[in-house]
Formats: sequence, C-alpha cells, structure tokens
Amino acid sequence: MSTISLCEPKYLELKNRLSQIQDLEVAACVLNWDQTTYMPTGGTYARGRQIATLKEFAHEKFTDPTIGQLLEDLRPYEKSLPYDSTEASLIRVTRRDYERAIRVPSEFMAKFCQHQAVSYETWVKAKSLKDFSLVQPYLEKTLELSRELASFFPHQHIADPLIDFVDEGMTVSILRPLFNELRQKLLPIVEAITSAPPIDDSCLYQHYPKEQQLKFGHTVIERVGFDFQRGRQDETPHPFTSSFSIGDVRITTRVYEDNFTEALFSTIHEVGHALYEQGISLELEGTPLAEGSSSGIHESQSRLWENMVGRNRGFWECFYPQLQGIFLKQLSHVSVSEFYRAINKVAKSPIRTDADEVTYNLHVMIRFDLELAMLEGKLAVQDLPEAWNERYKTDLGLVPANDSEGVMQDVHWYGDMVGGMFQGYTLGNLIAAQIYEASVKFDPEISFGIERGNFTLLHKWLKHNIYQHGRKYTANELINRVTGKSLSIAPFIRYIQDKYSNIYHLKLPIVA
Amino acid sequence: MSTISLCEPKYLELKNRLSQIQDLEVAACVLNWDQTTYMPTGGTYARGRQIATLKEFAHEKFTDPTIGQLLEDLRPYEKSLPYDSTEASLIRVTRRDYERAIRVPSEFMAKFCQHQAVSYETWVKAKSLKDFSLVQPYLEKTLELSRELASFFPHQHIADPLIDFVDEGMTVSILRPLFNELRQKLLPIVEAITSAPPIDDSCLYQHYPKEQQLKFGHTVIERVGFDFQRGRQDETPHPFTSSFSIGDVRITTRVYEDNFTEALFSTIHEVGHALYEQGISLELEGTPLAEGSSSGIHESQSRLWENMVGRNRGFWECFYPQLQGIFLKQLSHVSVSEFYRAINKVAKSPIRTDADEVTYNLHVMIRFDLELAMLEGKLAVQDLPEAWNERYKTDLGLVPANDSEGVMQDVHWYGDMVGGMFQGYTLGNLIAAQIYEASVKFDPEISFGIERGNFTLLHKWLKHNIYQHGRKYTANELINRVTGKSLSIAPFIRYIQDKYSNIYHLKLPIVA
Repeated sequence: MSTISLCEPKYLELKNRLSQIQDLEVAACVLNWDQTTYMPTGGTYARGRQIATLKEFAHEKFTDPTIGQLLEDLRPYEKSLPYDSTEASLIRVTRRDYERAIRVPSEFMAKFCQHQAVSYETWVKAKSLKDFSLVQPYLEKTLELSRELASFFPHQHIADPLIDFVDEGMTVSILRPLFNELRQKLLPIVEAITSAPPIDDSCLYQHYPKEQQLKFGHTVIERVGFDFQRGRQDETPHPFTSSFSIGDVRITTRVYEDNFTEALFSTIHEVGHALYEQGISLELEGTPLAEGSSSGIHESQSRLWENMVGRNRGFWECFYPQLQGIFLKQLSHVSVSEFYRAINKVAKSPIRTDADEVTYNLHVMIRFDLELAMLEGKLAVQDLPEAWNERYKTDLGLVPANDSEGVMQDVHWYGDMVGGMFQGYTLGNLIAAQIYEASVKFDPEISFGIERGNFTLLHKWLKHNIYQHGRKYTANELINRVTGKSLSIAPFIRYIQDKYSNIYHLKLPIVA
Repeated sequence: MSTISLCEPKYLELKNRLSQIQDLEVAACVLNWDQTTYMPTGGTYARGRQIATLKEFAHEKFTDPTIGQLLEDLRPYEKSLPYDSTEASLIRVTRRDYERAIRVPSEFMAKFCQHQAVSYETWVKAKSLKDFSLVQPYLEKTLELSRELASFFPHQHIADPLIDFVDEGMTVSILRPLFNELRQKLLPIVEAITSAPPIDDSCLYQHYPKEQQLKFGHTVIERVGFDFQRGRQDETPHPFTSSFSIGDVRITTRVYEDNFTEALFSTIHEVGHALYEQGISLELEGTPLAEGSSSGIHESQSRLWENMVGRNRGFWECFYPQLQGIFLKQLSHVSVSEFYRAINKVAKSPIRTDADEVTYNLHVMIRFDLELAMLEGKLAVQDLPEAWNERYKTDLGLVPANDSEGVMQDVHWYGDMVGGMFQGYTLGNLIAAQIYEASVKFDPEISFGIERGNFTLLHKWLKHNIYQHGRKYTANELINRVTGKSLSIAPFIRYIQDKYSNIYHLKLPIVA
C-alpha cells in the first residue's frame, strides 16, 4: 500500500502534463478548423507556422524524459489497479504512445512533415492537370520515408508499424487473409446485384436548394442525438469532425445543390464520429484517453450511423414525409420505397467516396493491396497507375477516365504516407456491422426505435458499450467485449445479403 | 565590428524564439475569438483551461533565462544600431517586456487566466439576469488577483504597474491631474450643450433591418481601407478586434435593429483598430513589435476613425445619399444636416459605449476613479454598485435603471482585471484629437479628401507616421514624433469646442 500512495502524486503529475500537452494539440486543431472554415486568405502563411509551432511544442513536451520516468515509476501503481480503471488505462495507453513517439527522431519527423507539405501542394496541382508524372517523384520520396519511418520499429511486415499507428493490434498477417476472404465473397455479390435491373435514382439529382438541405440535415442530426450545446456544424470543401473537448465537438459539411445525398449522408457520417466524441466519459476529459479507440472503431461509428441507420428503411418511413414536405416539387411523385431504393443504389464507379456500401470495400482493398505491394518493393511508383487501372478493371469492371479519377483521387498517399492509410475504412464497415448486429440482438427494440424516429436506445447502448470508454480498450478488446466475438466478416456479409437481396429482389444468399 | 557579427546569430535566435512564443500567444487569441464567436457553450470549461495552458507556456518560454541571457549578450549589438532600427527596437522592447514578465510567476498567471474565463461566463449570466450579486464574488477575487499582480512590481501607486502594462510610461500621478483638468473643463461644456435646445435624433431609432445595416457597414469599412483579404467581420455581443497576424485581422460587430448608430459606429471604431494592425510593416511580422504601441495609441486610432472621420460632416456629405438609398423609408425625409446633428447629439446617458464624444470621457473617468478606489482598498466590491450610481448622479445627472446598465455594462473588470482597464479610452480621445489636428495641419487635403470619400491620404499618413512602426515607439515617443508636442488636453478641447459650438449654435468658448 505504501508504494501505491507514494505513486499517486506521480500519477497526478503525469495527468497534468498530459492535459497540457493535449491543450497544445487541441489548439493546433482549433487553428486548423479556423483555417478551413473562416480564416481570410491573408492568414495562410502565418497560420502554417503557428500550427507547426504548437505541434512541435506538444511533441517536445511529450517526448521529455520526465514522462518516461513517470511511466516507469508508475508501473507498481498500474499493476495494483484493475485493467479497466481509468488510471491503469491512462498509464498503459500513454506508455504505448510514449514508446512509439521516442523511437522516431524529431529531425526525421520535421523532414517528413516538410516533405508532406510540398507533396500535398504538388498533388493538388498534378490532380488538377491530370498528370501523375508531376507527383510521381514526390510519391517515391514519400514511399522511401514511409519505409524509413516503419524501420524505426520492430516488425514482421514493413507495413505493420504504420498500420499500428492508427489501428493498434492489426497486422498484415491478420488483415490480408480477412480482406481476401471479404473480396472473394463480395465480388460475386456485386456481380449479382449489378446484373439485376438497375435502380432509377434520378430523383436524387434534381435541384435541392442549399438552405433547405442544411435545415433538414440539422433536424435529422439533432434527432439522432447530436448535441448542439456541445457542438456545431459549419461548411467546408471537405467534411471532417474535430473535437476540442468532450463539450465541443464540431462537424463540417459540404452541400451540392444538384445531388441530395452528398450533404445529408456525409453529415450523418460525421455525426457518427461526433456522437462517439461527445459520448466519451467526462472522467477522461483532457487526457489521451478522451478520443476514439482506433481508426477502424471510429469509422465503424460513422458508418453505423450513415448506413445501418441513415440508409435504413425504417429511418425513412419516419423522416420521408418531412423531407417530402420540404422538397415538394422534387419528391411529391417519389414514393418512400422508390426513395429508399435510390439512396441504396449499387453501381460500379471509379470514385471511392461516391461508392455505395456494397462496392465501397472493393475500392478500399485495392488501395490496401497496392500500398502493401509498394512497401514490399514489388510495385514501383512509376507502375502504380497501370496497376491501379488493371485492378479497377478486374474488381469493378471499369478503367478510370484519367489518373485524377484514378490513382490520384485520394489525398492520403500524397499528403500523408504510404501504409496504414486505408485499412481503417474497411475495418470500420466490418466492425459497424458486427456491433450493430450485437446491439439489435441485445435489444430488438433498438431496430424498431429507428422506425419511430427514436434513436435513444441505440445511442445509449453505443454510449454505454463504446463511446464512454474512449481509448481505454484497443479495437480488438472492444469488439470482443461488445460482441462477445473476434472480428469477422460474417456480420457484414449477412447485413449486405439481407438488405440487398430485398432491395434488388434477389434470392438469398446472393451469388453470381 | 567583430562584436556585432558575433552577436547576429544571437539576434536570429532571439527572433526565432520570440516568433514561437508569439505563435502560442496568437493561438490563445484564436481560441478566445472562437469562444466569443462560434464556440458552443459546452466548450467553456475546457476552453478556459486550454487558453490558460497556452498563456502559461508562452509565459514560461518567454521568462526562460536564455531569453534574459540573449538580451544581455545583445547589448553591444543593440548599441551599434540606430534607435529606430527594427533590430534595436526589437531588443529594447523585448527587454522591457522580459523585465516585466520575469516578475510574475507562471502559476499565478495560469490561475488568473482560468479565473478570468469563469468570471467572464458568470458576468454574461449575471448581466442577463440583472443580478450583480452573482458576479460579485468573482469580481472580489479578480480585485484580489489584480492587487497581487501589481504587487509583483515596485510602484508608487498600486495601479501603476497595471496601467504600465498597457500604457507604458503613464502613472496615476500623471493621469489623475490630467483627467481632473479634463473633467473640470468638460463638466461646464456638457452643461452648456445639454442646456441648449436638444437635437431630435429620433430618425436613428426607427427599424433598420440587420442585413441592410451590415451591408452598408461593409461598404463603408471597405471604402475607408479595411482589407477583407486580410481580415473578416463577425458578430459578437461585445465588439472587439483581434490580430492573428498582419494578414489576418478580425473585427466583430453587434447590430441593433432599432438603433442605427450602434453597429455602424462601433464597426468604424473597430476598423480603426484593425487598420492599425493591418498597417504594421511586414518586416515586424511574428515579432513582439507587430502590435500597437499602447492601449491609448490604439484607442486613438479607433476614435479618430469613428469620430473625426465617421462623425464628420464631410463624411456624410459623401455617404448620406447612399444611406438614404438603402433606407428610403426611414431617411427620405431627413436632410443630411439633420442626420449629421442627430449622430452628434450630446446627452447625458448611462452607457459608455452609447455615449457621444463629449460626455464619453466622463464615463471613462468614473471607471478610472472607481478602479483606483477599489485597488486602494477605499471601496469594497459590494459597495461598488452604489458608488457607481452616486458618481453617475454627480457627473451625468442620472442613475442607471439597473446594474446591467450600470456597473455591469462593461466586460473589462469581469473578463480581465481591475486596474489599467480604462485610462486608455480617454488617452485615446486626447491623442486622436492631437494626431488628427497634426495630420490636417500637415496636409489640409486630408480633410477635403474625407468629403469626397477619399480616405487614402489620411490612411497613408497614419500608416506612414503610426501604423507601420508597430510597437517600436512608446506612446509618448510617438506623440512627440508625430505632433511635435507632448500629450495635452488642448487639441481635444479645441476639437470639441469647434465642432459642438457649431452643431449647437453656441458661442466660443463654450462655458456653462
């Protein structure tokens, strides 16, 4: 007992230091949010420097050897506490972060960040000119730096450390067979669906005035549980969610007046992320535990609300009359069944972010496989566009019109790194299905509630089982706790089979 | 020469450190701006902590002995350079700031900042409920902390260090007699004017729709020179100006639909501050020189644009036809002379920010005297509302209807501190008159330009003589450089006598 009480002041010191480090990181996020939403262009140059300074100080403070010493000194205290306790979890998670942070030399990170900034700018230009060759040397350098970054960590596969940054515990040896199995099941399903008579979704591509779209979106997200007292919504060219504290979680939205689905579903998607952040236990406020467990778990929450809820038949039984009331001219002749089918239309298309939930994972797995091949040295950057197009031909039966709609469509490789960038999206879809299935099994009222516009049961269940814990548990721990099983593709395949055999009037199981 | 070249790398090191410290301070300002404009209420608690952390780190970095050593080492370099050079000025001003900063413990500043955030939120609530007792304990704590802050510095009067923070070189022993003299001259002038037949300003208190007010305000401030590429305008309950870099200077505005003057003149006021910040030489970007010289000089620029320009007869000869065009219903029957007299109506009123330029200083001097009395321990916070009301009765012949229109009307004591908060306003009025007189004497075209809606001459003259220098010179240095004389009340009294004897058809000099 004496050891424990001796350690407690050190725990408080650790917590206090971490809280201040988080304040610096949050400040960088606020400056970034401001830059994207409201900053005048004249502020651009200074803002870049300001954000870099905040991140540099945060990194400097976190890699201070005092943090390492505190973590060492706190080992007995940690062992004396239950694994689930906030204190043990904070020490455990911080130790992992710390050991990760000190392995990478500051000068390397500075060099990499600088390269990322230049590479990003070149990508913007190359994409607008549809000329991959402009960005190719930068991507080659990014690949080299990504490999170097991974090499600071012990690993089985060169991509493992990069995946581990955002999806801790996931490795190539777990993901490759899982994704291959998923692809083998999905390809015939997609084939069967796209061979059926296509759905007419032209009702979604009429003129939908922006203000009315935003107003309807506001109603929906307030209803599903987004707390506007503890958050807000703004407009940006690319939607994202930021959390500045558990009481201040913000989403952004973009509206296309000629496409009804873009604003609404990306808003519900971001709200899924935001509900997670708003639902974290207040006890974790100001600590590194006050964020989502992993990239995959976070994405599972956005996808669960976007797809399992927002593209649910019952959801529209509830909201469609209101939507029709707002867009009388556009929708008075469209039945709720037709509308429901339109928003769930499955089609082979070149762009990941426009993809329906059935083909979406095919897009992701193409990227996953290609980044592994690049990291393994089996695919040269100069051959990437060809490899990309070949794989699109194989999996989606089409070749992108140009590299801007192909290999350059996503920012990730050009603004961030090669490796660990995409698995989270498919993990998110798989986890969403597994968690949603578990929630409905736990309480079938959850699914009936959605039809009555009552999202409280689902929201509470997710908050209790996932949100409140923040980063206490890894993705695998959480999936096992919540669903009683390890991650598998079965629930996702069941979900897709059930939903789309109904929508497309196909026999179960769907096969080619 | 060898000494100098040896020192140069140290100058660069100093500059680099100062730039990073400024990044932290700017981040705190952005977080504050965000809190006031867009932050959801749920973010309040964490935001207080975040701002406190940033300020604490900035303070910690700035008071690092390395800065002191660099400043010592740079003495020969500084002496080798002209007083006006950017390098010598940066070293000189930084040394003053440093010597001031090292006296205040970081923990104290953090505690104070956090208290200020909570006190501010309480004031918002107390003001809306018209209940001073809610905020009284917070103000008591603020007073205590303000005295503690002052006590870290040697001083003649307890308020001197607090005044010196913002109006360097000014002390109670200078200001008390100056302000007493001003009050003695003003009271009979106010008496004489308010005994004359009152001006009918009812034309200003019709319904003026918000959007149209904002649109007209936008036109005006763009015309006087506010650069929207390097700034923006938002709405807040209490208008203010923030500078996040020379390329990102933001003003805020509040609009009352039943009062035309509020939005427009407070906007022109803030634009005066903003033109100063936007006009600072780019060479000073990222250094502590990239801000205004002092509170009084800053206020002189806002008041110069608000009053000498915005309430100028020639200004309205130019803009009134456009205003009439926008507000046809409200103003078609009002002549430019009637309008000009209306916006310059002098009246005894309870609210400082609504006050005309003649009575305005009486409001300020009440606050100045009351904060001195509180700091001296001669006035308890609980007796403040009564003391406030008594002094209003004496100087302005009225008692506020309630404490929200009385002692709680201004944010300063509740969001900042007690001491040094108000002298800058009256200094600003005095300096504005002295500087404007000098500018017109230098080039009479400046005054003719205003009548033609040409503000370029005045803007350029101010930029050349004041704005570009940032904090290179103290207020007294600047006043002497620009006007060739020391600060005096004479130009202000001349300005008031000339303008108001004309408006009120009184004989010169105006006396009771």
